[in-house]
Amino acid sequence: MQNFDYMTPTRLIFGKGSIEKLPEVMRPLGRRVLLAYGGGSIKKIGLYDSVRQLLSGFEIVELPGIQPNPKYDPSVLEGVRLCKAHEVDVILAVGGGSVLDCSKAIAAGAKYEGDPWDLITYKVKAQAALPIVDVITLAATGSEYDCGGVISRTETNDKIGYMDPLLFPVCSILDPEYTFSVSARQTAAGCADAMNHTIEQYFAADTTLLNDGFCESMLKSLMVNTRKCLDNPEDYTARAEMMLCCTYGCNGILSLGNSQSGWPCHGIEHALSAYYDITHGEGLAIITPRWMRHILSERTMDRFVKYGVNVFGIDPALPKEQIAIRAIDATYAFFESIGIPMHLREVGIDESRIDEMARHIAQNEGLDKAYAPLSEADIRQILIDSL
Amino acid sequence: MQNFDYMTPTRLIFGKGSIEKLPEVMRPLGRRVLLAYGGGSIKKIGLYDSVRQLLSGFEIVELPGIQPNPKYDPSVLEGVRLCKAHEVDVILAVGGGSVLDCSKAIAAGAKYEGDPWDLITYKVKAQAALPIVDVITLAATGSEYDCGGVISRTETNDKIGYMDPLLFPVCSILDPEYTFSVSARQTAAGCADAMNHTIEQYFAADTTLLNDGFCESMLKSLMVNTRKCLDNPEDYTARAEMMLCCTYGCNGILSLGNSQSGWPCHGIEHALSAYYDITHGEGLAIITPRWMRHILSERTMDRFVKYGVNVFGIDPALPKEQIAIRAIDATYAFFESIGIPMHLREVGIDESRIDEMARHIAQNEGLDKAYAPLSEADIRQILIDSL
Repeated sequence: MQNFDYMTPTRLIFGKGSIEKLPEVMRPLGRRVLLAYGGGSIKKIGLYDSVRQLLSGFEIVELPGIQPNPKYDPSVLEGVRLCKAHEVDVILAVGGGSVLDCSKAIAAGAKYEGDPWDLITYKVKAQAALPIVDVITLAATGSEYDCGGVISRTETNDKIGYMDPLLFPVCSILDPEYTFSVSARQTAAGCADAMNHTIEQYFAADTTLLNDGFCESMLKSLMVNTRKCLDNPEDYTARAEMMLCCTYGCNGILSLGNSQSGWPCHGIEHALSAYYDITHGEGLAIITPRWMRHILSERTMDRFVKYGVNVFGIDPALPKEQIAIRAIDATYAFFESIGIPMHLREVGIDESRIDEMARHIAQNEGLDKAYAPLSEADIRQILIDSL
Repeated sequence: MQNFDYMTPTRLIFGKGSIEKLPEVMRPLGRRVLLAYGGGSIKKIGLYDSVRQLLSGFEIVELPGIQPNPKYDPSVLEGVRLCKAHEVDVILAVGGGSVLDCSKAIAAGAKYEGDPWDLITYKVKAQAALPIVDVITLAATGSEYDCGGVISRTETNDKIGYMDPLLFPVCSILDPEYTFSVSARQTAAGCADAMNHTIEQYFAADTTLLNDGFCESMLKSLMVNTRKCLDNPEDYTARAEMMLCCTYGCNGILSLGNSQSGWPCHGIEHALSAYYDITHGEGLAIITPRWMRHILSERTMDRFVKYGVNVFGIDPALPKEQIAIRAIDATYAFFESIGIPMHLREVGIDESRIDEMARHIAQNEGLDKAYAPLSEADIRQILIDSL
């Protein structure tokens, strides 16, 4: 087992009606609030009105219009400007992972005199950040329980993940009822996102029985509960369990002591959504089984066998390779069964920029150091197989 | 799923050599340190010397001699006196769960003008507490990752669990090598303690697939790794995984959203060790299978079936009741196989005070509200069955 240094100090307030605790949570953090959100969905479900009403004693500055794959320009830059101009005390992010990721970049940028891109690219280490509170409306990224975010810069096709312990939300408010109106397509993409977070950590060296069991439980629960959510979007228990699962995706608790896996599917997918602005979870679902096929070898075989037996219940008496291939096929079949478009062409990506993307990924994502090291040629092949 | 409000802000520094980070962890917390520890074991393994050397720039006041089932008088009272007299800034607990539990009571008591018993019994809510850092030498209680402790008061046979979010350790330093010298008997008792923590949370209503999977992984990992530790006390990987498992025992992460289970075995065991000062983990191991037999019914059957199939690999095609009984027998057999004395008589408890203990438990532990409610007669029967 590897040494680790770990914490997740965020408070989780979970369940229906949790929003009522918002004023109590916000009060010690200050009176001037940046309210960050995305499109109109929080208005449609009444959450925007609830928040404004609960925070009637606060001074609120709004940053609306944060997009999926949140953009450095304008969203991060505009948020930083607003925080500085209005001397904001605390950021309240209301929405999905994109709103929260963007808010994290703003929180650090607001306390930094230079170009916030310095922080995101680790050229400069942040010395302080505004506190963040969030109200989550989409079960997917796990940003509500980690200290990282992913920011896209359109003009350079960069999509960069950055992390800093300063950026743990102080408190995340999670009410599964806010996810009732999430579309089938977004529900499936959220599931794929969280499943891939788990898979990225499961396929590693030095794993423990404990971590393997945690990951397998996550995957099984996500599959069962996503199906229930798709069958009945207002199934509270299923939405709740899915929301809880997603929370654990990226804070490291699924892989404490494991060797670094390199998060290869994320490395590849970040380029896809940077170049084409596709839905992150869909990109991951498309890449995952192709990546699996590509890295299947004598060395990785036992991981796939364990995955197949424990997650999909494949007969352990079968030959190892057969178990592994069945497990990969089952992964593909599950994503397809929940309605995810399983070919890059279906989400608007053709072969024209594959070479360019493969080069970009190989140069920027460090996948030559992944659990199963990937060269530029490997990455290119995985992309071609995904077309 | 039930609503919950959860956090565990403690930083975990895990792995061999972690002690080197102690000065960096302590420095921001202050210069005057109460160093709390138990018997001589931390001197025998060289940890005491390491700590004194690493903290050579600090002012250290010592509180040695904290016993298992830590005592209000003298340990808590003496610790509070020392903290006040020396204006201590931070408590450093070095040892097992008892040292840490005692330190938590001291941390709260040091910031309170009245009798610290008021806090432990919740007569008064603590308003502040000294910060706590710990270095753990025994994989068992999980106190290093929760905000609770258990304190015994000899003259009244009270053994009281108390919790306060103020009492989360700031940082827990976990080096599995410090557990190499733990005796076989204490290793087994630590395993039983952590297994019971898991079982107490598993047998509940409203559980999720996710929590069930987490608990089942904990139990399987604890059994496999404890055997390895007993076979080879210096098996780093096994000691490490056991240590990590124990960490999750009591901070709630195994049962977020579950209905309250009531922790019945703990309720019963607290009386056993308050009246007879036995080893907590051994008391739990003795009680657990008898409690299981006692609560097995049509209503609880499915829980036992899931437990038997998923934890012990019992054939799911068997009749339900047979699976349940085999699972209970397997629980007993496992504890026995790791050398735990499985009868109360073997740890010095006879029938003479059973009526008195049953009454004490029924009056103080609220087990009539447990997952499977227990009356005084039920408790008495479980104790008799455990003789």
